[in-house]
Amino acid sequence: MAFSLLPKEERFFALFDGLAAHGVAAAKTFHELTRRWSCDSPLLERLHEIEQEADITTHEVKDRLDRSFITPYDREDIHALTSKLDDVVDIIQSASNRMRLYRLPSCRPEIVALADILHQAALAVARAVACLSDPSRKRRLLDHCIEINRLENEGDQALGAALGAVFADVQDPIAVIKWERICETLETAIDKCEDVAHVLESILVKNG
Amino acid sequence: MAFSLLPKEERFFALFDGLAAHGVAAAKTFHELTRRWSCDSPLLERLHEIEQEADITTHEVKDRLDRSFITPYDREDIHALTSKLDDVVDIIQSASNRMRLYRLPSCRPEIVALADILHQAALAVARAVACLSDPSRKRRLLDHCIEINRLENEGDQALGAALGAVFADVQDPIAVIKWERICETLETAIDKCEDVAHVLESILVKNG
Amino acid sequence: MAFSLLPKEERFFALFDGLAAHGVAAAKTFHELTRRWSCDSPLLERLHEIEQEADITTHEVKDRLDRSFITPYDREDIHALTSKLDDVVDIIQSASNRMRLYRLPSCRPEIVALADILHQAALAVARAVACLSDPSRKRRLLDHCIEINRLENEGDQALGAALGAVFADVQDPIAVIKWERICETLETAIDKCEDVAHVLESILVKNG
Repeated sequence: MAFSLLPKEERFFALFDGLAAHGVAAAKTFHELTRRWSCDSPLLERLHEIEQEADITTHEVKDRLDRSFITPYDREDIHALTSKLDDVVDIIQSASNRMRLYRLPSCRPEIVALADILHQAALAVARAVACLSDPSRKRRLLDHCIEINRLENEGDQALGAALGAVFADVQDPIAVIKWERICETLETAIDKCEDVAHVLESILVKNG
Repeated sequence: MAFSLLPKEERFFALFDGLAAHGVAAAKTFHELTRRWSCDSPLLERLHEIEQEADITTHEVKDRLDRSFITPYDREDIHALTSKLDDVVDIIQSASNRMRLYRLPSCRPEIVALADILHQAALAVARAVACLSDPSRKRRLLDHCIEINRLENEGDQALGAALGAVFADVQDPIAVIKWERICETLETAIDKCEDVAHVLESILVKNG
Repeated sequence: MAFSLLPKEERFFALFDGLAAHGVAAAKTFHELTRRWSCDSPLLERLHEIEQEADITTHEVKDRLDRSFITPYDREDIHALTSKLDDVVDIIQSASNRMRLYRLPSCRPEIVALADILHQAALAVARAVACLSDPSRKRRLLDHCIEINRLENEGDQALGAALGAVFADVQDPIAVIKWERICETLETAIDKCEDVAHVLESILVKNG
């Protein structure tokens, strides 16, 4: 890690922002992957790299927690926030890997729509996390959490539409199994963004 | 919100009871829906309304947490309890929506049996939550948690029986996919009731 | 419960070790079951017994929490650790039950491979839990958590390989549904081991 001029507490905020940025990069790359799907797209390798970079940041936070006397929030909350941010990246990579091993010939438009909502949710998570370091932006942080919640509801609607279309259009049962699983994984990925929002809300509530 | 004579702490307990009542209403309506299933049943719209009412209560608790100096428990525990109670309503609505978009012609008796256990679990959750405001009912609250745990085990058994029947009876693989997913969603809904029990136990344990 | 010479705090550590040992017994038995699968294997009954024994230990911890003034960690953390350790046993028993009711004629080698990773993860959990009672073994405990994390990543890889093989080899869609569900359940079981690691890390972080 490079020499840092930041005070110790601020380093934590920089790491949270870094992790949230990995989430945005993963969601953006995944969204692009769904728009021009191919089983040997270089974006699959890129997603794998983003996941490994997020793992490194996650371990840096955990190490730093271990060595710091002063932390901006309760240590267990920093631990929870870090794990939940990392989960977002993990599940996006896992969805892309699932699509590759299913050897899908093409990608349905409903999957692109779900990936778009996921991308927006990851952006809202990054905006919420960016407010953490400044107590005066608490109201704005909560507004981003409400936006994440709204996107999660939009994701539920989009999942319903996607499953309806799959069961109406697709005759091959094995193809149905694959599309259904991908839809469910993307909905879970959006839920993971909402889990981050819940941890952020819980931190705010605890710290008045 | 109407003018309230209740002291501030008691308003929280009233809101918890309200949320738990939404869970009971959702589970009861869902149980009825499975007994006389049709894709255009008005009960589907009713479940959607209950979910929206539960969302309003959930937001009221979160706003109130934000504005209250004194809370009956640690703020993060109130946050967790509220989220978990809301999750029960959400997943029941989601199960009903899944059944509608699958365009099921009828409902299997095993699904009715799972819905019955879910209904009983929601009732046990409401009874447990009703004990929260009165420290002298702590033992009774724990008994309701044990009952929820027992119902969760009963749900596991019923899920096994349901899946066994589906795989034995149903030849059409796409129908198997649909029934399996509905069974799993109902088991998850019963698990969500147990998650509420875990938060309640954790609150009791923390507050000795 | 037999008369115990152990001080009160140590009894908690003994119970944690007991629960982790149930997890190892369940994972080991399940691994053996996959290697010589039959629908009427006595190992299925053994897994059911292990699950019930783990329930008894779980209830003993919860009762003890209720009666103890002094606990080695915050009460809610002991509650969380106990629940997560019990979850590992529950899901392994549930996976075996699923295989039985699917009336599988044989077990695929990829399932044996996933069961092997799960067994290793359960062993790493038990080793991590065994370090809890001794503050000087904190570094070693974290190393076991890193090992659990590594096994979870290995499990993800093995799941990908397993699903790839299932979708490549199996033509019958209903058989695909069964194998896919078993694979996913085993991945979730390995995730549950990682959840224990997260609680352990969180306890360490909180207690400096």
